[in-house]
Amino acid sequence: MTPHPLRVHLEQIAPLTDGEFDYILGHFMPRAFRRHQFVVQEGMAVPGDFFVVKGCLRAYHTASDGKESILQFATENWWVTDYDAYYRERPATISIDCIEPCELLCLSLLNREKLCAELRGVEHFFRKKSNAGYVALQQRILSLLTTNAAERYEQFAAQYPHLLQRLPKTMIAAYLGVSRETLSRL
Amino acid sequence: MTPHPLRVHLEQIAPLTDGEFDYILGHFMPRAFRRHQFVVQEGMAVPGDFFVVKGCLRAYHTASDGKESILQFATENWWVTDYDAYYRERPATISIDCIEPCELLCLSLLNREKLCAELRGVEHFFRKKSNAGYVALQQRILSLLTTNAAERYEQFAAQYPHLLQRLPKTMIAAYLGVSRETLSRL
Repeated sequence: MTPHPLRVHLEQIAPLTDGEFDYILGHFMPRAFRRHQFVVQEGMAVPGDFFVVKGCLRAYHTASDGKESILQFATENWWVTDYDAYYRERPATISIDCIEPCELLCLSLLNREKLCAELRGVEHFFRKKSNAGYVALQQRILSLLTTNAAERYEQFAAQYPHLLQRLPKTMIAAYLGVSRETLSRL
Repeated sequence: MTPHPLRVHLEQIAPLTDGEFDYILGHFMPRAFRRHQFVVQEGMAVPGDFFVVKGCLRAYHTASDGKESILQFATENWWVTDYDAYYRERPATISIDCIEPCELLCLSLLNREKLCAELRGVEHFFRKKSNAGYVALQQRILSLLTTNAAERYEQFAAQYPHLLQRLPKTMIAAYLGVSRETLSRL
């Protein structure tokens, strides 16, 4: 039997017994979404942090003039939510929708904190995961500060080759902070 | 007796007994630095994560043409290091130096992991701290993607009013990703 993708993911950092994993999984709510459906919507409550079992999503900000900037993509084995709103239990300031049909596992903040308090391995997992995410965001900030459009696209293509096939060019441009026209010329 | 600044800082998230705090503090190495001195130097090993007791520092990247981009400032009660290099035990790819004379507390990776394994509150503290840092970096990315130079400077001034007095304009420009000339016109 193939192990559950969440178990494989957690055990890259924290080993778990069968009983522990079943207990953890019981705190996640499975959710299926259609293409284009909202998972998190600006101005609304955030139901949880989402682990991606299958599919592809984007988290994005919409400016007053309608311009969309993409904060994050998420595919299999990634986590995505509006973290600012999630941790502080405030309405979302960004939206997250599905680029493909998605199977997600939703973890409420209450259940996250409960699991972290009850199981040492879970708190360890989320600390390590957050550290790695922090480093990835620092690298993206340096990339935004130091590179031009062509270099930024090359970095993205080298780091996320599997995303190039799954994402429309317009979205990649909105993630890199370059215009669609500039990206087309590259 | 005034409580130790590190204790005040840790206890904002995790309450500690006197014995626990003394034990934790014993794992930090006090370090004093002069103005302009390197705390972390590109290409060298990273001695630890630094908690700022007193002073002001910048973490920055130097491009091949000599242009400096500032990834982070740090003042009292902030933490700073080259996190990518620190967590992965690789040579630094950025430099950190002192804008003012600094009193720092240095925590090696070995001692950080030891404390996290031994004291539940320490692992909890670093998880929560890393989550908050992740959110702050997401907000900076959105700011870099969505705002112009004037808006970016206003956001910085509103978020870090105490830094405006302590930092030369050139450094603020290198943090915001705008030219010194643009910043002067604002």
